[in-house]
Amino acid sequence: MSAPQISSAANPRIRAAARLRDRRARDEAGLTIVDGGRELRRALEANVEVVEAFVCEPLVRTDDARAAAAALESAGVPIRTTNEAAFAKVAFGERAEGVVAVVRIPSTRLDSIRLSADALVVVLEAVEKPGNLGAVLRSADGAGAAALILADPRTDPFNPNAIRASAGTAFSVPIATGSTSDVRSWLRARGIRVIAARVDAETEPWDADLGGPLAIALGSEVGGLSTAWSTEDVTAVRLPMLGVADSLNVSVAAAVLLYEARRQRGRRT
Amino acid sequence: MSAPQISSAANPRIRAAARLRDRRARDEAGLTIVDGGRELRRALEANVEVVEAFVCEPLVRTDDARAAAAALESAGVPIRTTNEAAFAKVAFGERAEGVVAVVRIPSTRLDSIRLSADALVVVLEAVEKPGNLGAVLRSADGAGAAALILADPRTDPFNPNAIRASAGTAFSVPIATGSTSDVRSWLRARGIRVIAARVDAETEPWDADLGGPLAIALGSEVGGLSTAWSTEDVTAVRLPMLGVADSLNVSVAAAVLLYEARRQRGRRT
Repeated sequence: MSAPQISSAANPRIRAAARLRDRRARDEAGLTIVDGGRELRRALEANVEVVEAFVCEPLVRTDDARAAAAALESAGVPIRTTNEAAFAKVAFGERAEGVVAVVRIPSTRLDSIRLSADALVVVLEAVEKPGNLGAVLRSADGAGAAALILADPRTDPFNPNAIRASAGTAFSVPIATGSTSDVRSWLRARGIRVIAARVDAETEPWDADLGGPLAIALGSEVGGLSTAWSTEDVTAVRLPMLGVADSLNVSVAAAVLLYEARRQRGRRT
Repeated sequence: MSAPQISSAANPRIRAAARLRDRRARDEAGLTIVDGGRELRRALEANVEVVEAFVCEPLVRTDDARAAAAALESAGVPIRTTNEAAFAKVAFGERAEGVVAVVRIPSTRLDSIRLSADALVVVLEAVEKPGNLGAVLRSADGAGAAALILADPRTDPFNPNAIRASAGTAFSVPIATGSTSDVRSWLRARGIRVIAARVDAETEPWDADLGGPLAIALGSEVGGLSTAWSTEDVTAVRLPMLGVADSLNVSVAAAVLLYEARRQRGRRT
């Protein structure tokens, strides 16, 4: 192990990368920062452009982190080795696995989403917590959803905490953002039916048809879906709430609905 | 609004309550600390003993927090008003709603759990994150589960962050803890079948019978269930994973399985 190339938290590259934890810096640069070996391997597998990586060798201890460092190297990504002080500035505290990278944020334009004939997509309107958004991505990936659409987004899908909560699936599940009005037009133009999760609906999801081209729409943690989704062509469903709480976490509700759609559709082969 | 009774973060009551954020202090005192209006109202509704409450009037702004403060007062709970500095010491930073309380931790003995004839219970083995445990409680409450059983527990179900993630359902869903061996004996003695979530299982949950007295068992975030659950009398199931990730978050998997059981059972009326 040779001496690290960067040994100060004041190093300009380190400082520029650390700034990507703030949304404004991400929006300006079109870049984000990815923590974690598993997340980085999934970014590479999805052909996301990795601009540079920082590796703190004494902290690289997991198989995932070692595999990611090797994959970054064979992909020709510029790698800067750092000491622990410099790494602490750029890494996300508790979760430091010794490797972080700066990656280019993929396009989130609605017209870049390609769908198969019976695609299942998830729409989240005005969801605020990056952790919830990441958790929905992970379930959407598992259930074979074709895309996550953010309507009137309140959080950035490439927030580093969303990427982490997604276990790196933020790079494998196509993501698009748009106003609620644009998202509804886009769905209509493609003949995609909408199932809306509402706590005041009467139909349980297993009594609704979740086959064919379908969007499962869920609203914000506090207010649920806006009235823009209360139109005749939208089927509202609710999960039974048999205890004292009046709603499920949005990421949990999304997963239950996605897997109910998967059950109705049978396995993709 | 009169002057607050406590105006220093060094106040001994404030310091004693703040220490309950550490597990050792909770275990020694048999007490925990509850943040948030909704959580406190659910604790009161569940007849949990509230030892004392701290209210910082300038921070009480939500309907939930106001309702909780009023409910604490009518329940005869000793309430200490504090200034913001003292409150900051005892409250959980970002989420401060102006009201926190010290409550007695309910019994978590297996033999205190009462079950109906076709009870649905959740077993979590060695789950480590309080947030996951709380999220499972919230889904268990929604899906009408009779209890949450923690086998070989690695986190304290009355960790303040678990209570918060549970939206207060930590007080309405009965919770018990025990060694994996004791939990398996307890289930056997009550004739409760076990469905185990395993990523290497072949049966999908909709092809398994999730009716009757049933325990849905899930393992830790990293290692899954121990081999103690790989016996002939346990049915292993897995949710299809159609994307790049190899597993779901444990709280998401629990919710999907709980609601699949609920679907198969029909609505409780």
